[in-house]
Amino acid sequence: MQICDLPLEEYEKKIVEFHGSMAPGLIIGGFMVDLIVKNLPKDRFYDVICESMKCLPDAIQLLTPCSIGNGWLKIVKIGRFAMTFFDKETGDGLRAYLDTEKIKKYPAVNEWFFKLTPKHEQDADKLFETIRAAGAEIISLQKVKVDTSITRKKKGSKIAVCAKCNESYPGTESGNLCKVCSGAVIYYT
Amino acid sequence: MQICDLPLEEYEKKIVEFHGSMAPGLIIGGFMVDLIVKNLPKDRFYDVICESMKCLPDAIQLLTPCSIGNGWLKIVKIGRFAMTFFDKETGDGLRAYLDTEKIKKYPAVNEWFFKLTPKHEQDADKLFETIRAAGAEIISLQKVKVDTSITRKKKGSKIAVCAKCNESYPGTESGNLCKVCSGAVIYYT
Repeated sequence: MQICDLPLEEYEKKIVEFHGSMAPGLIIGGFMVDLIVKNLPKDRFYDVICESMKCLPDAIQLLTPCSIGNGWLKIVKIGRFAMTFFDKETGDGLRAYLDTEKIKKYPAVNEWFFKLTPKHEQDADKLFETIRAAGAEIISLQKVKVDTSITRKKKGSKIAVCAKCNESYPGTESGNLCKVCSGAVIYYT
Repeated sequence: MQICDLPLEEYEKKIVEFHGSMAPGLIIGGFMVDLIVKNLPKDRFYDVICESMKCLPDAIQLLTPCSIGNGWLKIVKIGRFAMTFFDKETGDGLRAYLDTEKIKKYPAVNEWFFKLTPKHEQDADKLFETIRAAGAEIISLQKVKVDTSITRKKKGSKIAVCAKCNESYPGTESGNLCKVCSGAVIYYT
């Protein structure tokens, strides 16, 4: 079994190395990326929007050139188990999502996904086997048109130096203080 | 020269593989991670908050066990070139930031960072050489106490199925619709 031209075992090794553990969501995420890539024209570049913070971003980062730091992967916090690959010029995209009808055919996956069984009562081996056997059978695809205005990079933004902390921050913001010194964001003291 | 026990050349190879190109910000980010790790007690686990979406998250993902998908790396959109490693139990943390005073000693880095020279007029080789030579000399450290309430995982949240799209979404949200079907987030049609 291959995931984006990678033997499944190789992909699973990469999961443990990068993500720290064998996460069921990352294997399903791999099947999602693979299914989308197979259904997209080969001669274009795509950006990706991920609808969840959990697991899926790592599947995308492991299997595509898109990462958080290079900006080709963006996360829109919706909390659905879904991702969209799209052409950033035209907005034409393909969205993959976990199909809650299809997943019913695989009780072990359904129970894990909907947290119907406490974690310590789950049979991990059976869960992974079922996920591998299900493959892309629990995923559906949808053609979408992405609003590229919300994902486009703002070009030419200047860099300012905060009058209080003396650190750099995006000069497009109003005032002469960064978000921490203006009190807009507080995460530490 | 070593970055987190990795020869600099090895780290630079990983940058190209994961990030798609040799980004100056990722090399500086590597020196930041290295400096923080050297100054933290060895026997604890740390979560990371990154203050920028650009480049830095990939340095953290390449050099630490923390990734976006496993939740140990979080991004707080402040836009400062900075990151904080912290103990998620106590909130004790160490923050590294690009020091806008120290960077002045390295004009090639200063010009690139503040976009003082148009990209096509920059001497990339000189920039990379200067960044390597500067190493951690352009970074400062700050002890901080992180507000762990904003980074703590919400445990036991149930998963709901949206009444409209039939997809799963966090059941902690009000109403019986996901953020897309309720109109709270619109990124595609």
